[in-house]
Amino acid sequence: MSTSVAPGVTVEVLLQALPYIERFRGAVVVVKLGGNAMVSEELAADFAADIVLLHRIGLRPVVVHGGGPQIEEWLERLGKDSTFIDGRRVTDAETLEVAQMVLMGKVNAELVTALNAFGPVALGLAGTDAHMLVAEPHDPELGYVGSITAVNPELIDRTLAMDLIPVIATIAVDASGQTYNVNADDAATEIATCLQADKLVFLSDVPGLLARVEDPESLIREISVSCIEDLIGDGTISGGMVPKMAGCAQAIGRGVGSVHLVDGRIPHVLLLELLTDAGVGTMVTAESS
Amino acid sequence: MSTSVAPGVTVEVLLQALPYIERFRGAVVVVKLGGNAMVSEELAADFAADIVLLHRIGLRPVVVHGGGPQIEEWLERLGKDSTFIDGRRVTDAETLEVAQMVLMGKVNAELVTALNAFGPVALGLAGTDAHMLVAEPHDPELGYVGSITAVNPELIDRTLAMDLIPVIATIAVDASGQTYNVNADDAATEIATCLQADKLVFLSDVPGLLARVEDPESLIREISVSCIEDLIGDGTISGGMVPKMAGCAQAIGRGVGSVHLVDGRIPHVLLLELLTDAGVGTMVTAESS
Amino acid sequence: MSTSVAPGVTVEVLLQALPYIERFRGAVVVVKLGGNAMVSEELAADFAADIVLLHRIGLRPVVVHGGGPQIEEWLERLGKDSTFIDGRRVTDAETLEVAQMVLMGKVNAELVTALNAFGPVALGLAGTDAHMLVAEPHDPELGYVGSITAVNPELIDRTLAMDLIPVIATIAVDASGQTYNVNADDAATEIATCLQADKLVFLSDVPGLLARVEDPESLIREISVSCIEDLIGDGTISGGMVPKMAGCAQAIGRGVGSVHLVDGRIPHVLLLELLTDAGVGTMVTAESS
Amino acid sequence: MSTSVAPGVTVEVLLQALPYIERFRGAVVVVKLGGNAMVSEELAADFAADIVLLHRIGLRPVVVHGGGPQIEEWLERLGKDSTFIDGRRVTDAETLEVAQMVLMGKVNAELVTALNAFGPVALGLAGTDAHMLVAEPHDPELGYVGSITAVNPELIDRTLAMDLIPVIATIAVDASGQTYNVNADDAATEIATCLQADKLVFLSDVPGLLARVEDPESLIREISVSCIEDLIGDGTISGGMVPKMAGCAQAIGRGVGSVHLVDGRIPHVLLLELLTDAGVGTMVTAESS
Amino acid sequence: MSTSVAPGVTVEVLLQALPYIERFRGAVVVVKLGGNAMVSEELAADFAADIVLLHRIGLRPVVVHGGGPQIEEWLERLGKDSTFIDGRRVTDAETLEVAQMVLMGKVNAELVTALNAFGPVALGLAGTDAHMLVAEPHDPELGYVGSITAVNPELIDRTLAMDLIPVIATIAVDASGQTYNVNADDAATEIATCLQADKLVFLSDVPGLLARVEDPESLIREISVSCIEDLIGDGTISGGMVPKMAGCAQAIGRGVGSVHLVDGRIPHVLLLELLTDAGVGTMVTAESS
Amino acid sequence: MSTSVAPGVTVEVLLQALPYIERFRGAVVVVKLGGNAMVSEELAADFAADIVLLHRIGLRPVVVHGGGPQIEEWLERLGKDSTFIDGRRVTDAETLEVAQMVLMGKVNAELVTALNAFGPVALGLAGTDAHMLVAEPHDPELGYVGSITAVNPELIDRTLAMDLIPVIATIAVDASGQTYNVNADDAATEIATCLQADKLVFLSDVPGLLARVEDPESLIREISVSCIEDLIGDGTISGGMVPKMAGCAQAIGRGVGSVHLVDGRIPHVLLLELLTDAGVGTMVTAESS
Repeated sequence: MSTSVAPGVTVEVLLQALPYIERFRGAVVVVKLGGNAMVSEELAADFAADIVLLHRIGLRPVVVHGGGPQIEEWLERLGKDSTFIDGRRVTDAETLEVAQMVLMGKVNAELVTALNAFGPVALGLAGTDAHMLVAEPHDPELGYVGSITAVNPELIDRTLAMDLIPVIATIAVDASGQTYNVNADDAATEIATCLQADKLVFLSDVPGLLARVEDPESLIREISVSCIEDLIGDGTISGGMVPKMAGCAQAIGRGVGSVHLVDGRIPHVLLLELLTDAGVGTMVTAESS
Repeated sequence: MSTSVAPGVTVEVLLQALPYIERFRGAVVVVKLGGNAMVSEELAADFAADIVLLHRIGLRPVVVHGGGPQIEEWLERLGKDSTFIDGRRVTDAETLEVAQMVLMGKVNAELVTALNAFGPVALGLAGTDAHMLVAEPHDPELGYVGSITAVNPELIDRTLAMDLIPVIATIAVDASGQTYNVNADDAATEIATCLQADKLVFLSDVPGLLARVEDPESLIREISVSCIEDLIGDGTISGGMVPKMAGCAQAIGRGVGSVHLVDGRIPHVLLLELLTDAGVGTMVTAESS
Repeated sequence: MSTSVAPGVTVEVLLQALPYIERFRGAVVVVKLGGNAMVSEELAADFAADIVLLHRIGLRPVVVHGGGPQIEEWLERLGKDSTFIDGRRVTDAETLEVAQMVLMGKVNAELVTALNAFGPVALGLAGTDAHMLVAEPHDPELGYVGSITAVNPELIDRTLAMDLIPVIATIAVDASGQTYNVNADDAATEIATCLQADKLVFLSDVPGLLARVEDPESLIREISVSCIEDLIGDGTISGGMVPKMAGCAQAIGRGVGSVHLVDGRIPHVLLLELLTDAGVGTMVTAESS
Repeated sequence: MSTSVAPGVTVEVLLQALPYIERFRGAVVVVKLGGNAMVSEELAADFAADIVLLHRIGLRPVVVHGGGPQIEEWLERLGKDSTFIDGRRVTDAETLEVAQMVLMGKVNAELVTALNAFGPVALGLAGTDAHMLVAEPHDPELGYVGSITAVNPELIDRTLAMDLIPVIATIAVDASGQTYNVNADDAATEIATCLQADKLVFLSDVPGLLARVEDPESLIREISVSCIEDLIGDGTISGGMVPKMAGCAQAIGRGVGSVHLVDGRIPHVLLLELLTDAGVGTMVTAESS
Repeated sequence: MSTSVAPGVTVEVLLQALPYIERFRGAVVVVKLGGNAMVSEELAADFAADIVLLHRIGLRPVVVHGGGPQIEEWLERLGKDSTFIDGRRVTDAETLEVAQMVLMGKVNAELVTALNAFGPVALGLAGTDAHMLVAEPHDPELGYVGSITAVNPELIDRTLAMDLIPVIATIAVDASGQTYNVNADDAATEIATCLQADKLVFLSDVPGLLARVEDPESLIREISVSCIEDLIGDGTISGGMVPKMAGCAQAIGRGVGSVHLVDGRIPHVLLLELLTDAGVGTMVTAESS
Repeated sequence: MSTSVAPGVTVEVLLQALPYIERFRGAVVVVKLGGNAMVSEELAADFAADIVLLHRIGLRPVVVHGGGPQIEEWLERLGKDSTFIDGRRVTDAETLEVAQMVLMGKVNAELVTALNAFGPVALGLAGTDAHMLVAEPHDPELGYVGSITAVNPELIDRTLAMDLIPVIATIAVDASGQTYNVNADDAATEIATCLQADKLVFLSDVPGLLARVEDPESLIREISVSCIEDLIGDGTISGGMVPKMAGCAQAIGRGVGSVHLVDGRIPHVLLLELLTDAGVGTMVTAESS
């Protein structure tokens, strides 16, 4: 994607983006980046460009990330096996140590570096900084896997006030100082709720909500909270999508403006979703528009 | 210009604009809009869109305008003839009254309204507000035509600090409260110098500096201050372009970053000049790059 | 009025003014200046001196003005006739254009210049600046005559915070950018209500509220809201004074401290009303004192 | 002085004061009040009214006071005799204790109370507060009489920023915490110099500088620094007036705008001197005007 | 108390103080210092050191003081007798004058000087400054003895915001400017209530609340509000302790965190009470812990 | 170290610390923590307590850390060998990746967590955040080992202004976004110089500067810059201590107040060095005191 564009087209495009720019000025957009969406270096660079562009035209992005595949890769390199219970890794002390190193010292660092390639715009944070994310054990069987019980937004607010982009690794802490690995989707939802974000975007490796799971053409482009309840009721939404969509509905109910499920494998999917009429993912809103 | 553009192209274009956005963040750009450049309503709407877009992506535009043709039209409607000396209208008390009404109550108001069509972004000012532009009589024969002797930038600074776009009608005032009509090119230059603007853009109805006056294809796209002096010396720059180009050179010498002469009759010429490589006008810089 | 006063008297007077100064420190006073009150240049200079003096001793004046007679004069000079419906001018596009020019480019400019003769104290504004006054059509038959639907006070607040006197021309705007001429009395009332002003003063060409319309000696110096209702009920207040006085009562009910009706033809009537016990007009208060 | 003044005269007077108000807006005026000028309760009330009025019209008065007669009275009531060397009281520990009590607990308190009768406008300070006035012993023979070596202006600046009038008792302190009685004229001069005051006014019980000491009609209304040197040279200024006038000249040389010597026994002398053309005292300026 | 301590012990002690420092960061502590607690110069120096140390480790002390014994001493030196009604001095004009001088010019000054021996940390205030303490006559028979009716906290807030320690002499004032001597215990309570202080500490010359008045070993170290009511009910608390303890209970009920009664004759009693587990006085809390 | 201390001793100690507290209020203290000084968990907890205590009594600590031993341990666990040239690890891409993970995700995280055990006081940063530490390759042979070329202090300043303790991992970045491992001693020196720190403390595993390398009793407690030059000249300072001490001298020359070399293996060595007279390490100053 680097073909030359005629100057006239450039101007045309910029002006078509202006209404979006007006609408989203100052909007807080929490973007959760899944580990699966960061596998290619090119996608990471695309993602960084998108986030910086959104920042430059007046939005206030907050990046939240996990790093499951990367943690797994390093556990393998260290010859350590993991057990999973209900899709959550059982996290003993050594696993937690590796998870922290990978999330804070690798994934977070790489994202911050990619963003800062455009100028000094990003600040890496973890939930341990000034006790931003507070957690308790999720389930004794899972070890150091935590559930978030509180978000202290001051550090995020200050980072935004400095006109910087916070990039948050999802390690949380309890009052005793014990750290926990927390689910990044949950962390992003809690942060978005606490900030009363205008938008919460999940970048993952699926296209969004499909009317028929097996049919990628059946993407539902927009859905209201009440409609989600109906589709769960009649079984159209099923399996792993039930908690996912219920979580989206709940975030809306707690004050988030809209939730977007988009496919992080599409180049520049963030810009396509937020600044064009392309409608590449699923948008969840309070009421059907 | 309202054909549809494919979403992928949109994304491509926005990303190509990003380096310009980075480079010009926070830059103060004084744009002088000639009365000739405002004759068509469509051009005025284009101009407003350009200014708002520049504002939204982080530049700080300051609009300075005259209104010669509009003043002339109203003087005619009132059946009043004007005399000109060296291209400057002889301004008696009645002419001054009409000039003020037209500049402040018509041209300025229309520009502010056109800009505010995108949201509450513009504030109309005149040099009389808080004595922003101070003048003395330019030449007794010309009546109430003034030369600017001082610019009080506080009101402009405050307007920019409010994240608003100042739109300035070029009526100035002396210590006794007598008002004067001042040349808008001069006013824009003085304001740009006082603000130490990054860019000063003149929108007029000529393509820029031509190597051969009769040949519109001979546009000089970039020229340094020393080169201007050479071209004035060897007669390439002649006639009315001599004071114009000497003024550009002087503005650079007094701290303005660059001066741009562009043709206001080209739609969206501001975006083309500032955000693309199109190079549609003449850019004057301290040193040839 | 320029006889010399003995220094001892000066001191005496200043000290007698001190309690008024104490009482009104920081008070927001919205002063509506009718077009009829600006006919003489001397009265305009007197008015400017009064406003600057009030500003200098700690009050925060906000000037709101119309300009009916001046608009009429220019329409005549342009040979344009106007129709009036219920005392409001039918305003077609050309009339609106003239009204804007006269209000913003002449009356407003003259007031700002008169005030700034004392130093850089005044800033000319119109309802179009940053969409300060929002309106909708008042009545389709009247054309571009608007009713105010919202006041955005931020620009006024900022102007006061800059220690400047806002001078507001009563042109309003709707969301589409269409401008309207609005009644200046209504605009002043809406602005005073929005600012929760301490005082709202109407300078017109009548002495105030008269107990007997034909008897200028029957001036009512102070009246409470409940008393106004009684006098409307028993017919003492009648004709054009009914909406006027009902408007005053409504302003008080919506939080304005007091409303004053004074005769702008009396030199320095503002100072006489606000800083002496002379009682030259009618003061409307919440409760009879 | 409480006769009624016609409202028209009031307005006239206020308008005549306006140019003075404009000229002195924001001006820092250090007023030194001698103990002799405070003997009558009526004069004290007059003084307080003057200071509050100056404050209300935009000046920033700073009051500095001594209290020689009051200290003397209390020493007498306690049956304690004092010795004087070169006009300065020899100050033993007991005398210092009494001086502090009288200056801080009586004179300062009475001034603060008199000023606050007009509203909460005054804050009593002493040089000991936050080590505002730093001193060293003036002369071993004089005991606890100090010479000021430094002024820490922060507390005065903060008091002015709170829009309060600082009233300063001239007790100073050294680094060890030992307090000293300091000459109030010197303290006022040092404070005015440190603040780079616009005016320094000495209220005493003499009319000002007289051309012929014995002739009160020979008051010199204005004198320049160079002229003072001449008059000292030719003996016109002699005796105790030599150090006094030399001190005035030095204050001007160190940046104070003008120094005024006025007779505190004249009612409202401050207003007469600063806000009228009466010229009741002697003004010392950098250059003869 | 100046024996050398081994460095290791120093470190140990500082670390043991850390939890107290954490707990009390930013806490407002109103300390009432009785005249009896200031009789020895050594105790005064100890007190100053304690207050500065508390300030330096992050608490915000506010010192309130009376000066009964010192006033008595000066009345005696002046040969003036006093009458007392119910433990309150009958205060005629002369007594008030002496009280003000002693409180503001001696006790307050000495405290400020003692505190400032550690650096410029203290600012002396009286209730007359900016009308901080407003009072009315307590009882016509007592003369100028006042009861506090309002506290204006702005001056205290500003002093704390300047990172200075306010030291307040308990002279109050009414709207007419008449001053009053007010009970320092009451003043401290009203100030603490108005500031919603975390702690209110009374330094006096008794050990605290004793279970058996005659037995100094029977000190009650901590007591809840409800318990106070019980002990008053069963007569354990009797005599002069009834109003004292009722006052403590009332302060807690109006929002003060805790009230401490400590013996000012014990060196460094403030530090012992607030920063160690020594429990040297009586702490009154909302609920028994 | 948890024996009980008598309350009287506590008070004694606190008061002895007061002069140090006064002297260091607001002082910026950059503390470089070597990887060797963090081997024991108890030492890490001690270190955290010391830093928080210094913060609480008014100093502004900035922690800078490396992590050589921890990096080595993880390289070993991954079965990766390292080469060293002149004591610096040759850093290939994989080594850099591990170094970042260990420094940012392990050592930094553990320090932040240890500090935050006392409350939300610490914020983890890396030189990559907002491009705080800018570097270039130190030596092509060493791979991704960088030399610092610039420090952008804004993020540190903001963190201090938020009253938080910055904890900085010494990973730097160049304009292209390439990261580098930088020497932590150098980073601490550059940061201290950029901040014009009052103190720069190196915690390592040696006692300080020894007059005779083999004799730990020959510790030099204080040394001036000129004295260092002499001792290098006469060979007393030799081997690895030459660049170390020259670096200290250079830091002083560039504006750091003093440099301290202390033994991180001594419990609470920071408090001993900064708040007692124990003199446990070597202090380098501009002039011998």
